[in-house]
Amino acid sequence: QETNSPEFGKGLFNLMGKDSTWSAKIAARMQLLSSTTWTENSNGNYTDPHFNALIRRARLKFDGFVYSPKLSYKLELGLSNRDISGSSKFTSDAPRYILDAVIMWNFYQNFELWAGQTKLPGNIERVISSGNLQLVDRSLLNGQFTLDRDMGIQLRHYTHLTDTFVMREILSISQGEGRNITTGNLGGHQYSGRLELLPFGEFEGGDEYSGGDLKREKSPKLMLAATYNLNLNAVKTRGSQGTYMETDYGFHQTDINTLFIDAAFKYNGFSFMGEYAHRDAQDPFARNIDGSLTGEVVQVGHGLNLQAGYLFKSNWEVSGRYTNVKLNKNITGENPENQYTLGLSKYIVGHKLKVQTDMSYLSVNNGPDELMYRLQLDVHF
Amino acid sequence: QETNSPEFGKGLFNLMGKDSTWSAKIAARMQLLSSTTWTENSNGNYTDPHFNALIRRARLKFDGFVYSPKLSYKLELGLSNRDISGSSKFTSDAPRYILDAVIMWNFYQNFELWAGQTKLPGNIERVISSGNLQLVDRSLLNGQFTLDRDMGIQLRHYTHLTDTFVMREILSISQGEGRNITTGNLGGHQYSGRLELLPFGEFEGGDEYSGGDLKREKSPKLMLAATYNLNLNAVKTRGSQGTYMETDYGFHQTDINTLFIDAAFKYNGFSFMGEYAHRDAQDPFARNIDGSLTGEVVQVGHGLNLQAGYLFKSNWEVSGRYTNVKLNKNITGENPENQYTLGLSKYIVGHKLKVQTDMSYLSVNNGPDELMYRLQLDVHF
Amino acid sequence: QETNSPEFGKGLFNLMGKDSTWSAKIAARMQLLSSTTWTENSNGNYTDPHFNALIRRARLKFDGFVYSPKLSYKLELGLSNRDISGSSKFTSDAPRYILDAVIMWNFYQNFELWAGQTKLPGNIERVISSGNLQLVDRSLLNGQFTLDRDMGIQLRHYTHLTDTFVMREILSISQGEGRNITTGNLGGHQYSGRLELLPFGEFEGGDEYSGGDLKREKSPKLMLAATYNLNLNAVKTRGSQGTYMETDYGFHQTDINTLFIDAAFKYNGFSFMGEYAHRDAQDPFARNIDGSLTGEVVQVGHGLNLQAGYLFKSNWEVSGRYTNVKLNKNITGENPENQYTLGLSKYIVGHKLKVQTDMSYLSVNNGPDELMYRLQLDVHF
Repeated sequence: QETNSPEFGKGLFNLMGKDSTWSAKIAARMQLLSSTTWTENSNGNYTDPHFNALIRRARLKFDGFVYSPKLSYKLELGLSNRDISGSSKFTSDAPRYILDAVIMWNFYQNFELWAGQTKLPGNIERVISSGNLQLVDRSLLNGQFTLDRDMGIQLRHYTHLTDTFVMREILSISQGEGRNITTGNLGGHQYSGRLELLPFGEFEGGDEYSGGDLKREKSPKLMLAATYNLNLNAVKTRGSQGTYMETDYGFHQTDINTLFIDAAFKYNGFSFMGEYAHRDAQDPFARNIDGSLTGEVVQVGHGLNLQAGYLFKSNWEVSGRYTNVKLNKNITGENPENQYTLGLSKYIVGHKLKVQTDMSYLSVNNGPDELMYRLQLDVHF
Repeated sequence: QETNSPEFGKGLFNLMGKDSTWSAKIAARMQLLSSTTWTENSNGNYTDPHFNALIRRARLKFDGFVYSPKLSYKLELGLSNRDISGSSKFTSDAPRYILDAVIMWNFYQNFELWAGQTKLPGNIERVISSGNLQLVDRSLLNGQFTLDRDMGIQLRHYTHLTDTFVMREILSISQGEGRNITTGNLGGHQYSGRLELLPFGEFEGGDEYSGGDLKREKSPKLMLAATYNLNLNAVKTRGSQGTYMETDYGFHQTDINTLFIDAAFKYNGFSFMGEYAHRDAQDPFARNIDGSLTGEVVQVGHGLNLQAGYLFKSNWEVSGRYTNVKLNKNITGENPENQYTLGLSKYIVGHKLKVQTDMSYLSVNNGPDELMYRLQLDVHF
Repeated sequence: QETNSPEFGKGLFNLMGKDSTWSAKIAARMQLLSSTTWTENSNGNYTDPHFNALIRRARLKFDGFVYSPKLSYKLELGLSNRDISGSSKFTSDAPRYILDAVIMWNFYQNFELWAGQTKLPGNIERVISSGNLQLVDRSLLNGQFTLDRDMGIQLRHYTHLTDTFVMREILSISQGEGRNITTGNLGGHQYSGRLELLPFGEFEGGDEYSGGDLKREKSPKLMLAATYNLNLNAVKTRGSQGTYMETDYGFHQTDINTLFIDAAFKYNGFSFMGEYAHRDAQDPFARNIDGSLTGEVVQVGHGLNLQAGYLFKSNWEVSGRYTNVKLNKNITGENPENQYTLGLSKYIVGHKLKVQTDMSYLSVNNGPDELMYRLQLDVHF
């Protein structure tokens, strides 16, 4: 009665169609999270914790090829309330169930053309799957600056500059409104370009896009990368993310530039990841027809995220993270924030079955500081 | 690690339960659509295109039998935002995730009894799966007049009048409110009857309910059919579809009649499909208790859709479509519309992997005309 | 092309991972319900029936173990509009798709630790799966008093007091807000304890948590149990269920106690189930800061449910149910209700393929009485 299934962490099913006409790996994963947050009160004390336990993410993933191994696809669905939240009139008032739905065509040598909805070639922290993070969740920098997903096309190419030195280039044109939008494009499109340099070659098993050094790289590996994104006549406060900037005549439209510089380094259990992000806008202030402010502004500013960890032989990992987010206060009214996080992870079966916990101290200039403790269980079939 | 799976386009899984106690074919499909629309401005120019790229449909399908091959079932789920839209207080404010959930019982000879939620025996264009269309999407006639899905029962029967001549009769009683309604019936039920005549026999592989002549029928095949639908004391502007006609005392209730006459012809790569639709209502105007109009009216009128295509040996198909929708202007205030569409399709693996594109010109009497270009990719496992 | 699948009712897939590193049973089920309700009018007549046909439940279930047989999991997803309803600002305005998502760890001998979202150790009628009910649906008592699901942990233990006498103890600490909440805890947590006594041993195949005596117990089997639940500083009208008691200053918080006493008895086709429920609150009235009532009150009161059935050799079952719900009228303004139900079930393949029908008479003190007829089809793969 029992099928000969893959080993744990390699998917529920690994299907190969008759005559090798298609394949599908079907996988599922789930994160159970509990977090407790103490916010500094007016006396400077940390009392009255806020507790939250939830199914943070629950996902179904399908990937493989159709017709030819050169034509592959990926479909990822969210099931948890956090995964599918964000419904609005721009999404047909329906939950945002689909994360990725993308076709990838290796049409010529080292070139691939992607079409559909998927992550843009943005900051490394976002592109790393939420199931492969080094800490319980992504940093504040990512929350504020990420390009996340959009509907469009991507042209991807890589070259071996030397025996080991790999360079990758990604260009993307996308709708510019983010994922699961049914009302189409407003303003202009979004253009992204990313350049990745891997001077010492690719990481073991593509591990540059995975948290921690679980492969324990035998020689030092490095990726240096930069992304530039231009959202022409953007109508949302974070480019393709954030809130729609509605006015009494329609939508405020302005060009938004975002720059990311990021690096990943791994060697022998040690891992480092760093990101710098910068967002600017031609006219950050949404105004009504009479010139009055609507209250929505483009979230211009910059951020820095640095994190490192060491994986012990026992598959326990200690990690630390420093995040600085500094929005332009004159424009956004937001205070600069610094967050310090200490993490501890036990990888029972790599990222596929793990328990992670972290403690963060958030220091807000001219605002109440915050302590946060989180505990998360990951199971990925 | 790999299961012996069906060939491409025949489902992800073809399961047969132990002792043949059940079966299940599990299939998935996805449509990626981009469309660009130019609307005529006051100077008669087509400028300022509206662009929309989206996951048009993403579906999971389950069908097979339970207990006995005479007791079959179908379950179809929508995943994309367009698929699941339409939530309201009548659907428990929840997305409309389930498309079909129906049990089909072949209780006696050529008779079948269906129970559950599925497409009514309405116009051919609707009953053809959205994955098997000849053009990128269905016509304006279907959008306006279709019966679509409802919750209820259907009695189906077929007879061989001669060696080749097949006649099919379908009768249905259903709730009359459309799919995924949780608040139950308002007004009366909905009664549908459909008669199908196939003088030259069934199409190759049931292909009368599939767009284009992908089977390249060796002899001419024809289906002539008519559907009559009566929605007693209907409370929505299109019978079981459209908007609820709420008044200050409850709901406006009126009998709505809908008639469809349709035909399909295929021979040697050539295909033709034609539909005529007519809707009438006893009292189309929703009024409040004091006799004032609420603004909602039954969408009475008629429509005509004619389309034809030719499939070349290379599996490229050229097709054309003419659609006329003429609602009663005195009642609905809507202008007559004529739409002319030219389509081009490349069937890589039949309807299972195809690229379709079409260009439409919409001519609106006393209104701005419209040009629309669409490009769609279909993948059906 | 066809996989060697389980027999009907045993799941769609029974997967065992390579090297027995995991397992998964994947199952699906569906309920098609039609109900007709006649409400007594002012003349004491039962006219103008309200008819409702819907997909009552449609579910996907995954369960098995990961890493070690001692670490098991369960995931249950709802698909129907009734299953996923209840979206609010407390669920990220997203449908409540996930029913269960729980990890169960047999960490020591007869002890199990559960973590995640699942049913609390509450009244037997709730813990019995909606797919294994004796009548078309659960009683009014359950609707009013059930603890249902919550996010948290449970400690479970069992002992054999004698050769046959089994005692089970369950302790639970949970968030106290119910399922799929993304906004975290308000007020205090929720504490539940349940004690189960099975003096004549466990029922055949764990059948104490299944409706009817489909196993036709060869010797009399009995379970006596009690649950006590304390929701500290609860903010909802039914503890972790019901409506949030919002006030002009935040939320009304009060301790809510719930007690259940229940019993199940089965022998040779005869089955009996009884439940008593009692809810009390320290301060049932939600008030604004000026002392004015908000209108929300804790639903304090008690209820009794008694039901019995006999399964004939032909797998037809006749059953009856009496339910009394008596909320404190001074507090809630609700009239006492008595409901009498007569049920008839045909178990074609046990609970996996069955047709159930019941007729209920609801007698409301000082209110209109009600008749209800229901017919339901269940299919569980």
